[in-house]
Amino acid sequence: MSFSPLIRQLIDSLRILPGVGQKTAQRMAMQMLERDRSGALRLAQALNAAMEGVGHCSRCRSLSEEEICGLCRDPQRDDSLLCVVEGPMDVHAVEQTGFRGRYFVLKGHLSPLDGLGPEAIGISELLERINQGSFSEVILATNPTVEGEATAHYIAQLLSSKGLIASRIAHGMPLGGELELVDGGTLAHALAGRRPIQL
Amino acid sequence: MSFSPLIRQLIDSLRILPGVGQKTAQRMAMQMLERDRSGALRLAQALNAAMEGVGHCSRCRSLSEEEICGLCRDPQRDDSLLCVVEGPMDVHAVEQTGFRGRYFVLKGHLSPLDGLGPEAIGISELLERINQGSFSEVILATNPTVEGEATAHYIAQLLSSKGLIASRIAHGMPLGGELELVDGGTLAHALAGRRPIQL
Repeated sequence: MSFSPLIRQLIDSLRILPGVGQKTAQRMAMQMLERDRSGALRLAQALNAAMEGVGHCSRCRSLSEEEICGLCRDPQRDDSLLCVVEGPMDVHAVEQTGFRGRYFVLKGHLSPLDGLGPEAIGISELLERINQGSFSEVILATNPTVEGEATAHYIAQLLSSKGLIASRIAHGMPLGGELELVDGGTLAHALAGRRPIQL
Repeated sequence: MSFSPLIRQLIDSLRILPGVGQKTAQRMAMQMLERDRSGALRLAQALNAAMEGVGHCSRCRSLSEEEICGLCRDPQRDDSLLCVVEGPMDVHAVEQTGFRGRYFVLKGHLSPLDGLGPEAIGISELLERINQGSFSEVILATNPTVEGEATAHYIAQLLSSKGLIASRIAHGMPLGGELELVDGGTLAHALAGRRPIQL
């Protein structure tokens, strides 16, 4: 049985969602058509509104509906700390930790094989932001992947001449992890980064 | 960090999709906003088009853009066999097996606790369809769940007076399954339904 054109088009369109393959897209399409048409129409409306209305904050480059986002406007935050991350979701994750400095959101990480150099990921906007601010420390919170490490290293080199502390988030054992299951690289970092126990 | 209103609305709307929780919806929203806005707009358009354009086949009650769907119109199919399923996705699944009879799609299964009685799931339309057709056998292919079994049993009773064969799909070991892993009920069905080996 082949689906009718409109259903097929809906299934194909749903596959742009991350983690959604053919089978999941079919189930989503059927479920909406059979059980929740008003929800589907609301989703269509929300998609249109968000794609048209959401841009990027001109200061931190995170997603924002306004010229300058709420986090950048908040006068309560620490203007001496800048946290550099790879994407808007990372801002959300770092916020959960209680961090209360400022952010800068790169467009991903350096990836020369994909043609993504410093300009493509917004390094010049980052330098501009740093020059405009009064930061004493820049925390490089890119992902602990090969590309994320390279990106952090690249930025740290650029900042070395500016008299700023460029710091990197710690690598080590995740809480609740097990030594026998964690990879060797992580365990090596955990050993090398060991700290005296404060009693 | 709380998301801005349009992003929050998008995340909430995405959660109508089956299997999509808060975290997945956030990732989907961010991915679309950061990487694929044109795909998201196409998805919005496909949702609108499908919700407006797709109705139900007046004969088999499956999803269809036309008054009568392609399967019901197909003159090559066996008019003596009717396969009754719980939803449009089941038609898709049964089609894969090579079945070439006709279909009738219920609106789910009997579920008295949810207030879904015979009328709500379309039993009267099923009886009407059977009266209009020239079927010799009605295959009850509802799911092998408690509700699906009850629904099949209910329909079989209704049909018993009509001189039709009402058959039920077989229960037993799924291919590739393992005896030690399968539940006792399935294994009991597999034993009770055993067949002589044809050499």
